[in-house]
Parts: sequence; C-alpha cells; structure tokens
Amino acid sequence: MSKTKIALLGAGFIADIHMESYHRFVPEAEVVAVYTRNPERAEAFARKHHIARWFTDLDKAIAESDCEVVDVCVPNLLHHRAVVAAAKAGKHVIIEKPLSLTLEEADEMIAACKAANVKLMYAEELCFAPKYERVRLLAHEGAFGKIYLLKQSEKHSGPHSDWFYDVNQSGGGVIMDMGCHALAWFRWMLGGNPRAVSVLAHLQTGLLHPGRTRGEENSIILVEFEGGVIGIAEDSWAKPGGMDDCAEVYGTGGVCYADLFQGNAALTYSDRGYGYAMEKAGSTKGWTFTVFEEAFNQGYPQELKHFIECVREDKQPLVTGEDGRAVLELIYAAYHSAGTGRKVTLPFHAKVAKPIDLWLD
Amino acid sequence: MSKTKIALLGAGFIADIHMESYHRFVPEAEVVAVYTRNPERAEAFARKHHIARWFTDLDKAIAESDCEVVDVCVPNLLHHRAVVAAAKAGKHVIIEKPLSLTLEEADEMIAACKAANVKLMYAEELCFAPKYERVRLLAHEGAFGKIYLLKQSEKHSGPHSDWFYDVNQSGGGVIMDMGCHALAWFRWMLGGNPRAVSVLAHLQTGLLHPGRTRGEENSIILVEFEGGVIGIAEDSWAKPGGMDDCAEVYGTGGVCYADLFQGNAALTYSDRGYGYAMEKAGSTKGWTFTVFEEAFNQGYPQELKHFIECVREDKQPLVTGEDGRAVLELIYAAYHSAGTGRKVTLPFHAKVAKPIDLWLD
Amino acid sequence: MSKTKIALLGAGFIADIHMESYHRFVPEAEVVAVYTRNPERAEAFARKHHIARWFTDLDKAIAESDCEVVDVCVPNLLHHRAVVAAAKAGKHVIIEKPLSLTLEEADEMIAACKAANVKLMYAEELCFAPKYERVRLLAHEGAFGKIYLLKQSEKHSGPHSDWFYDVNQSGGGVIMDMGCHALAWFRWMLGGNPRAVSVLAHLQTGLLHPGRTRGEENSIILVEFEGGVIGIAEDSWAKPGGMDDCAEVYGTGGVCYADLFQGNAALTYSDRGYGYAMEKAGSTKGWTFTVFEEAFNQGYPQELKHFIECVREDKQPLVTGEDGRAVLELIYAAYHSAGTGRKVTLPFHAKVAKPIDLWLD
Amino acid sequence: MSKTKIALLGAGFIADIHMESYHRFVPEAEVVAVYTRNPERAEAFARKHHIARWFTDLDKAIAESDCEVVDVCVPNLLHHRAVVAAAKAGKHVIIEKPLSLTLEEADEMIAACKAANVKLMYAEELCFAPKYERVRLLAHEGAFGKIYLLKQSEKHSGPHSDWFYDVNQSGGGVIMDMGCHALAWFRWMLGGNPRAVSVLAHLQTGLLHPGRTRGEENSIILVEFEGGVIGIAEDSWAKPGGMDDCAEVYGTGGVCYADLFQGNAALTYSDRGYGYAMEKAGSTKGWTFTVFEEAFNQGYPQELKHFIECVREDKQPLVTGEDGRAVLELIYAAYHSAGTGRKVTLPFHAKVAKPIDLWLD
Repeated sequence: MSKTKIALLGAGFIADIHMESYHRFVPEAEVVAVYTRNPERAEAFARKHHIARWFTDLDKAIAESDCEVVDVCVPNLLHHRAVVAAAKAGKHVIIEKPLSLTLEEADEMIAACKAANVKLMYAEELCFAPKYERVRLLAHEGAFGKIYLLKQSEKHSGPHSDWFYDVNQSGGGVIMDMGCHALAWFRWMLGGNPRAVSVLAHLQTGLLHPGRTRGEENSIILVEFEGGVIGIAEDSWAKPGGMDDCAEVYGTGGVCYADLFQGNAALTYSDRGYGYAMEKAGSTKGWTFTVFEEAFNQGYPQELKHFIECVREDKQPLVTGEDGRAVLELIYAAYHSAGTGRKVTLPFHAKVAKPIDLWLD
Repeated sequence: MSKTKIALLGAGFIADIHMESYHRFVPEAEVVAVYTRNPERAEAFARKHHIARWFTDLDKAIAESDCEVVDVCVPNLLHHRAVVAAAKAGKHVIIEKPLSLTLEEADEMIAACKAANVKLMYAEELCFAPKYERVRLLAHEGAFGKIYLLKQSEKHSGPHSDWFYDVNQSGGGVIMDMGCHALAWFRWMLGGNPRAVSVLAHLQTGLLHPGRTRGEENSIILVEFEGGVIGIAEDSWAKPGGMDDCAEVYGTGGVCYADLFQGNAALTYSDRGYGYAMEKAGSTKGWTFTVFEEAFNQGYPQELKHFIECVREDKQPLVTGEDGRAVLELIYAAYHSAGTGRKVTLPFHAKVAKPIDLWLD
Repeated sequence: MSKTKIALLGAGFIADIHMESYHRFVPEAEVVAVYTRNPERAEAFARKHHIARWFTDLDKAIAESDCEVVDVCVPNLLHHRAVVAAAKAGKHVIIEKPLSLTLEEADEMIAACKAANVKLMYAEELCFAPKYERVRLLAHEGAFGKIYLLKQSEKHSGPHSDWFYDVNQSGGGVIMDMGCHALAWFRWMLGGNPRAVSVLAHLQTGLLHPGRTRGEENSIILVEFEGGVIGIAEDSWAKPGGMDDCAEVYGTGGVCYADLFQGNAALTYSDRGYGYAMEKAGSTKGWTFTVFEEAFNQGYPQELKHFIECVREDKQPLVTGEDGRAVLELIYAAYHSAGTGRKVTLPFHAKVAKPIDLWLD
Repeated sequence: MSKTKIALLGAGFIADIHMESYHRFVPEAEVVAVYTRNPERAEAFARKHHIARWFTDLDKAIAESDCEVVDVCVPNLLHHRAVVAAAKAGKHVIIEKPLSLTLEEADEMIAACKAANVKLMYAEELCFAPKYERVRLLAHEGAFGKIYLLKQSEKHSGPHSDWFYDVNQSGGGVIMDMGCHALAWFRWMLGGNPRAVSVLAHLQTGLLHPGRTRGEENSIILVEFEGGVIGIAEDSWAKPGGMDDCAEVYGTGGVCYADLFQGNAALTYSDRGYGYAMEKAGSTKGWTFTVFEEAFNQGYPQELKHFIECVREDKQPLVTGEDGRAVLELIYAAYHSAGTGRKVTLPFHAKVAKPIDLWLD
C-alpha cells in the first residue's frame, strides 16, 4: 500500500512537532504539501521539512495536493473553515485542539465530515502520551480501587505566537490553549464517554502578560462527573521556569503521580549554560531539567500514527470530533462559571462569538 | 526564671506530639499535669511522659495543677469549654486547630481570654514548619515576583480516633481536621491579616470511609483574596500510601514546590518491611518513604517554643485566636459554597450547630 | 527498497526486546527466522512474534532463511560460533554484549567479518538511550566544562536465565552481564576511541545468589583514561526493588544526573498491586515506580534502527566489534585487578578460558 | 545544675555552626570564651554570638575562661596542640574532624586525655544527622537483610578558607576535609568497632583549583571490612551547583537512598534570584534547591547536645578520639593506595609529616 498523503495546514510550533513525528515515527505517511499565508514562511517550512509543495491558498492546498488527509494546525478561528473545506473535498481530517471557537462551528464540522463520510480525528495527544497511557492502564488494572479525583495540569510562561493572545483569534486564554487538554484527558481516563454533571471555574488575568491579552492567564476548572468523580484542571501562562505537564490519580485503593517533563528529565547544573533544556525553559545556566524526546513523551507521534492507521485501515479513531465538541462544551461551562461565580450544570449551551465572552461579558 | 508550667488537656495523637516537642525542644517548659476522661489512659500517658500529675476532671486539672498555661488538645466540641474554663482560671491558652465548632464559640473564647488578659495562642504548626517558613521567606525576598496562586494540601487515609468521624464531635470531616491548616497557611503566607473576598468549594464523601462518617472525605477549597491571589486547599481522608503535606507557590517571577514528607524522606526498599516509615504509612514492605523528625519538620516544637516564649516574655504570639476565627469563617463559607454550588463572598456568617450543617442541610 | 531480512538467533529475554523494537520502530526490517535449540520454544516464539520460519539448527537458520543480517542474542559462550558462522555465510552481524568470552575469540570474530566484508555491529544500547544521548550532547555543548568523573550503574536482583549463573557459559558474573554497559558507555561519552590507562576493581559474591553462581554479584570498576578522567562502574545482581540504570557526569563547570528507570517513572501507590511496574520489580503492592516504553528509553529500537540503516545504506556503524573488544579488554583488566588487589595498566592481555578466571584463580 | 561552660577555639565556618547549634538547641551549655589569632576577628565573633570573653592566646583561652570543655575548631595542624593543652588543663575536649595530621599526634592526644581523665569527643556529625540515623535504625530493624555495600558522598566546589588548600596546614585535600566523614560513617553504620581489612583509593587533582592546592580535589576510597561489606567514599571539591551529602545502603533484602541537601529541599525557580539557597550554592537565579535548618539536618546540634550531656552526666560519648584515630589510619591507607596503585591492607602505619605525603611522594 502506498504512503498516505497528507496536506498540512499551518507552519507554526505545532506544525513543526507534527512534521518531526511523521518523519521519525510514521513512515507510512508522507506530507506532500504545506499551507500558510505567508509565502516565505511556506517555502522555508517546505524546504526545512522536505515537503514537495507549498501553498498560500488554503483551498488549493487541499484540492491540488493530491492528499488523502488534511492535518489542520492553523489558529483556532480558522479551524471551522479548514475542516469544512477539507470535508467538502472528501479528505479525512486531523484537527488540532481546541476543536473550534463555537459549538455551532463544532456541530457544522462534525456534520460536514459525516456527510462526506470522512473521519474527523481530534488531535488530543495526551490520550497517547506513553506515561499517561501507562497510568490509564494501571487504573484499568484496578491499581487504584475506586477513583474519586483526577488532576491534570499544564503550565508555562505563555505561548510564542501572537494570535494566542488575541481572543478574537484564539477564543480565550490558557483554557483554549491548554485547559482543553485536561478536560479531554479526564474523559479519556474515565472512558465510555462519561457524563459530566457540572463545572466550577475560577480565572485570573493580568499576571505575566498584562496588556498583551484579555484572555485568562491562570485557570482552575473543577468538573464533576456522574458517579461523583471530579477532575481538576490547573493551567497557567504565568509560570516561569519551563513547561510543566503533570497528572495525578486518587482512588480509594491507590494513587499515582505522573510528570511528563521534570519527571522524565536529567538533572543538570551548568555554570555557563547550554543549548536547549525543555520547551519554554528560559536560561540554561544553573540547575535545569533537561528533557529528551519531548514529542514522543507527549504522545504526538503515537497519536498521528494511530490516525494514519485509521485512514489506511478504515478504523474508528480513538478520539473524534465528538470528543472535541464535548470538551468545548465543558470550556463554555467553565467560562460561564467563572463569570457567574456559580457551578454550571451540564448540558450547557449559549450563543457566543467565542467562549471567553461568557466570562468577559 | 523557673520553668513555665503547663497543664495538658487531652492524651491522644496530638497530645503525644506536643509532649515530644516539649521534652526535646522546650526545656523552659514543664508539663505538670495531663487530663483525659479515662483514668487508665490518663495514668498511662502521665507515666509514659513523666508527667507529675494526672486528672480525669478538666476543671481540677486547670485549677489544681498550679499551671500557668493550658494546652488544649481535646476533641473539637470541647475546645470552647476548655478554653473558657482556662481563661476564667487566669491561665494562658494554647488551643489546637480548629478553634471551635461555631463562630459564636470562637467569639466567646476570644472575649474570655481578652477579659482575663491571657493569651489565646492558636496552634497552627504550618506557620512554623521550617521548610514552609523558608518558602515564606523566599516570598519576602522577592524570589517569586508577584504571587498569584498558593496551594497547600494534606492527605492521608483517615485519622485514628473515632471522634473525628462523628460530625457532632468534630464539626465536619477533613476540612475540620486538615483543611483548616491550608486556610491558615494562606493567610500566613500573604501576611498582614489579608482580606478574603470569596470562597468556592467542592466536597466528596463515601470514598474510603462510607458508613463511618457523614463528613466530607475529600475537599477542594478555593479562596480568593483581595488583590486577586487565590489559595487552593486540597485535603483528603481517602488517600492511601502515607501522609502527604505539600505546598506550592506561583508568582510571575518564580515558583516553589515544598513537600514535608516525601520531600524529606529517605527512599527505602525492603522485602520484609520494618517498623515505622511515616504517619499513616501502612505496610513497610516494598518501597517506602522513610521520614525522620516528623514533629520538627511539621513545626510543632518551634510553635510551642514560640508560645512559651510569649508567655515568659509577655509577647504577642504570631498566631492567635483571631486567626483561628478567620479560618473558621472561611470554613463556614466553604461548606456553604459546597452546599449551594455557588461562590460565597466574605464576610460570611450563619447560625449553625456545626460547620458541616451548611453542607449537609 | 525491500525490507532488510534478519535471522534472529536466540529466543530469550533480549530476543523479545529486539522483536518489540523491530516491530514497533524499524518497519524497514523484517525478522524472517528465529533460532533456538528447543523446538517448542522456537515455534512458540515464532508464533508470538509473527516470524515466518523457526529453526533448531543454527547454521541452517543462517543459511536457509534468506537473511541479510544475523542478530545474535544467544548466551555468551555461543557468540563466537554464531558470529563466525554468520560472517562465513556473508551475513552482516548484530552481536549483543558482551562480545565474546575471550580476546582470542574477539579477534577471530572481527577478522572473520572483515574478511567477509560484513559489518560487525556491537549492540550496546546505552549508546542510543535517548536520555543518555541528551547528556552526551550536553557534554559536547560544553555544559560541564572539563569532565573529570563519569559514573554508570546498573543494578537489579539477578537475571532470569540459568546460563548467566554458570560462569562457563557466561564467562563471569554481573560484569559480563551489566558492567560491560558502563565500560562501553564511558568510551562512548568521551568519544574518539579514548585510551584507557588503568583499571581498579573490587568484586563481591555470595550475596543474594550464594550457591547458585561462582560469579561476582556486585562489582565496582574504576577505569582511568588518558587525561585523567575516571569512570566508575557499579553493577549489582543483589539489589532488590527493581531495575536501576543511572549515569552521572561531573565536570569543573557542571554536573548531570540521569536515571532511566525511577527517573522516568510514574510514582504509584496501590494497596492490591497490579500487573507490571518495571523489569525485576517484584511485588507491585505498596509504592512502585511504574515505567513505560522501557525498550525505547533504554535505546534498543534506536540502536537496531541505526544498524539496519547502516546495512541498507552501507554506512559505518557507530558501535562496532572493535568497541566490544576494547570493553572485553577492560573486563579482563577488572577481573585481574580484583584478583591481585592492584591497579592494572592497559593494554592488558592474558590467556584464559573465560574472563572471571583472572579473579577466581 | 549550672550551665556547662565551653571555650571555643576557632572563629571560622565550623565555629559559626557550633555557635548556632549551642544557642538554639543546647541551652544547658554556655560558650564563655572564643579564641582566634586575629583580635578584630575574635572580637567580632564574640559580639555576634554574645560570647562574654575573647582571646588571641590559645593557652589563656583555655586557662582563664573558667571553662569545663574546650571545643576545638581550629585548622587541622593545630588540633594536636589545642587538644594536648586542653587535656593538660583538665578540660574535656570536643575535637572537630579530622582528628590530627599524623597517627603519632593522634596517639598523643588520646593518651593525654586519658591521663587527665577527660573525655576526647570526636565531632563526626554524620553520626547524628537525623536522616542518616533513621537509616541506621532501619539497618538494625533488619530492613535491608545482609548489608554488602555502603556509599557516602560529600561534594561541593571547594571550601572557603585558604588553609584548606595548603597541605601543610590541612594535611591533604578533600579527603582530610570531607572523606573523613564517610570513613567514620561506615564504621558507625556497621557498629561494634568493625575491623577494616583493606583500602583502595584513586585521587584526582588539578580540576577546579589548579594552582591553588597540591591536595586531591576528587577522591574515591573503597574500604573493605571484615565479613566482606565494602564502603565507597566519593568526595569532591570540584562539583559546582551546591553541596551534596548523600548515603546509600545496599543489602540482600533492601536498599535505601538518603540525601541530606537536595533530598530535603524545596524546589524553587526564580528569575531574579534571592538570598541563600544552600551551602556553596552560587547563583540563586533559575532553579535552585532551597534548604532549611542545614545545621540540624547535618547533625551538628544533636552531636554537641550529646557531648555536653556526656560531660554533665559523666557518660561515655558515642564517638571518641579512638574513632578519629581509626579514621586517620584509613586515610593513611587511602593515600598510600592512591600512591602505589595497590590495595593496602590494615592495620597500616607509616611515618609521615602529613597524610598526603603518602600520595605525593
């Protein structure tokens, strides 16, 4: 069977990670085209990653690249546009989180893919991160007894690209960037499309990026699921010192602490510093946590390999657009809870241009 | 100056810790009497700790022991009775957390001590734990920039004594036992009697002790302070594997993680097991975190030494009954938030027989 | 280019790891045959790993399997036989550590492969373990200033297979099993085929396996290299509690601590235990270090992928039979040092049937 | 009983630690005099520590201070002089490590104290460090089965005072400064005045302090005890990044890892840095290990409290001059082993002006 051809939309941070993942771990796939608006950027990205063709027109990238799969790594506000275009062109879709800016967009994207009989694969890599997967298996092995509390946390000092900070492009702050990971992971850990009962949230802004964004910089979200299990998502754009990605599981019969960065690192002291310690690390002088194989340990290659396998063998992906929509609904509820100071029950719906409006207004 | 004489009320787990602290670290004090209801228990405790006299009558213990200080380590529902009796007898008071079952009791205890011109010293040992104190000093040194998030957590598999599980004696579950530590510590870290703005809480029960207690077994409390700093208290009676006591500080210029148990331990593997690893450890076979100097590392000796010094030199204690009352008010707000699913603003007051009624009713 | 065909000799613990590595990470290779003496074992291994053919005759496995590469995972005393047979049949060779039982065998194996113009690839996976490779890169980035001390350590409670314990089959004890890793890694870290000046060693036996083996169970080897850098290898078959694989680097400008097992693990507590924590873990009740992707983190897939690439593209492998011989010479010197209580200078040669004879006699 | 009066000889780094220990933890003792050669330094030290009298004449400090105990914290080459003077004056002696520069001096010091019927108390604080003591108790509880390997290590970037670097004043390099701790600790852990059988050592110099000292900067010492247990002492003056003080225990039934600095620390990240992280830490920008109660965790107060109790109650100290002499003999053997490249058997004696001569010559 020949390689599965992919058109990659986007040439930023995440697109780089996807390319490294495909190159090193998914030889049955081939990225045949990349799209981004700026021609110099598109050409440079194509050259760096040995991609045959580059485009500055999204529709042409989908139509003329002879791809089977469109991998969407563009800013949030373009997710809907890109996915619907790909579905109409009969292409399978890999869509990076968060799914979209609104529930309406989410429903249209799911419908468009269903109508076109193409897969809508939601790229939540935490569902594939090997350490977290080992923990999930521990839970299924009964290691923890009855689980009553899950915690997941991602913290760093803020993303690089400007669009994250413009809530009209991103839809919100750190929740739209990283909180969505935790919300997806809670659902994944519990399994069986668990029913969320309510959401409580508290947000802070004006911490490390005052004036740069209206988005929340630190978020605490508490989701209660049917049966009483709760998930606490802690996310921050205001944490110096490098990236943090941790999970904890508490059950009546056991507990588990899993740390993807510091918990995998070599501990280094260097007077003069060196090249690269980890994502968002800052200086490498003094003590640092030196990580390795970041993409592999976060689950990106495993996720993409799974998605390509689903395309090649026409299998149901483990994480779909429906999962992305469920996460977006929790995000809506979180912003609403933060805005009202109340617990918000599920199901929840509201008509907004972007999720953060439920907090800002 | 001769030794300061202390009458110890109570002969349980905390009373043991106080005795070890006095014996090893506070030679300027002498416990001259112990009280507990059961005579065999009182006599055994006195013999074990070389205390000259033992009583089964609380008032006699206060009146006839020739003490200057009464150290109150009895169950929560007896705090009010013991403190008022001590104040009326003109004795300084060391009162273990939580201050009392109701705000009314708290106000009466504060008033009684004020009227008698005796010190009411609230025994929150986390304000003295050496590692946490080093962290607080780091904050004052400006190591973290502008602090926006504090976290403090205590978790184990449940206390030993039965009275904890009877909400009529304890006033509630894990919040009354351990959540109060975090609430006090947040106020201590921020300093200057900080104003709490609101409280959000979520509680769970029926986890590890179903049928044994109506009290909450796992609690998440989020306190917002003036200026936007939040404190998150996580406390559990349903965590197997030994005691956990951790704090985290997040600021725009730095972060800090402090762990009093695992973070101080020797890491041990033993096929056959051994005597004692740490509080609530369970089995010592396999891997364990072996701690040492638990009382010293939790701050008990330092706290008691400070209180005795305040008595001897007539100084203002660092932690007073007013601090205990402020904590109790936060506890009230937490139960109310959990009961209503709403953020509760401060100041808050309600008339209840015990704090947990705000959640159970 | 079609897949590179491999005949795997051996069906034990390491052979399993090689198979997992090929299947998951080296799609350009295909194991077409497996050999082991016992037919039931050979058939079961072939079925489990989907290998087309199985053999109980080593020469036939090499000759009739249509392989290009022979991957030698048999007990040490058979290394020479297998490698020479493969070379004579014109097959490239992957040879697991240690290279052979004697320096004479080593020289013959190297010569045979050279004469046949086939590659002799020494499978020292620590040269590919991603965390250790990151550390080596740190050294090259100048993070440590002038390195003066390297430490590498592997410890567990003893291997499974009986042949390890029979020094006539293994050649020695824990040095032949695990000390060889450290000795190879020191040379790899320093780079440029560094000249070892002397070796000091101390061995212990009769610890956890008295009566089962004459081999050393705990070894300390100190190698001094030209320029004064020393490497300390600590290896043990008498360490309960799971596998340990650590390295440390000390330089005048920095230090680094890298731990492949506990340092990558999730920390788990489970009352009832669960399936698998890590290699040689024993019970999974209580606290355990739960690892994941063990083969990947130890470097096996990366190593094998590199070797296959060298075959496919006719490139020089990073680790060769000459490296294996250099390690064996250090091993000889170590046993001799332990036997005489003296530092042994390099180069060193002696005529023995197996390395441990230099200590036992 | 009135306070035990102490004359402190020395006003350097260790003298400061002793003073903090006495003040905070040994109220039954009172330092009534301090001696150092420089009058400004003596006066400043006395003022800082509230010591009644200061001297620049050692004999007068002993004779005129009305002390009962002389605490010797002067440079190594003055140990003999100070101890003999104190003994002749009928004073009990606390002597900091290492005992003396030569075995002859050691024998004279022991004899002088015996003749004067005063205690010669060897201040090896690791015998009192609470974490290490917990580990020793674990060993006695049988947690480890049969112990076969002990490791102890102290590393930093070099002491402050110049005299350490002058081998004529110090007697050697890092072994005389820190290796002596490990050698004493091995004997203490095994208990019962264990018989050392042989010593192997390897030394390095010219690492971080080339040109400043002829002393060894990095030392590896392997001691074999009767019964086969070995102790490995690793000590360094060339390790940047702060102080390291660790011990490991390996037995057939268990293992233990104990770390006194990083293993007790709070983990801090600070962009701007702060005051003090730990001994020899260097910069506090970036990540640091923030320690607390360093003196308490290293065992200094507990050790001094024990010594004063022995004086007050006329009891035999746990660590004596004989222990110091045994350590010095091991140090001699270590230097001789490093110099000859041979294992050195015990008992060992040689006539040298200072121990390092056995290596340098």
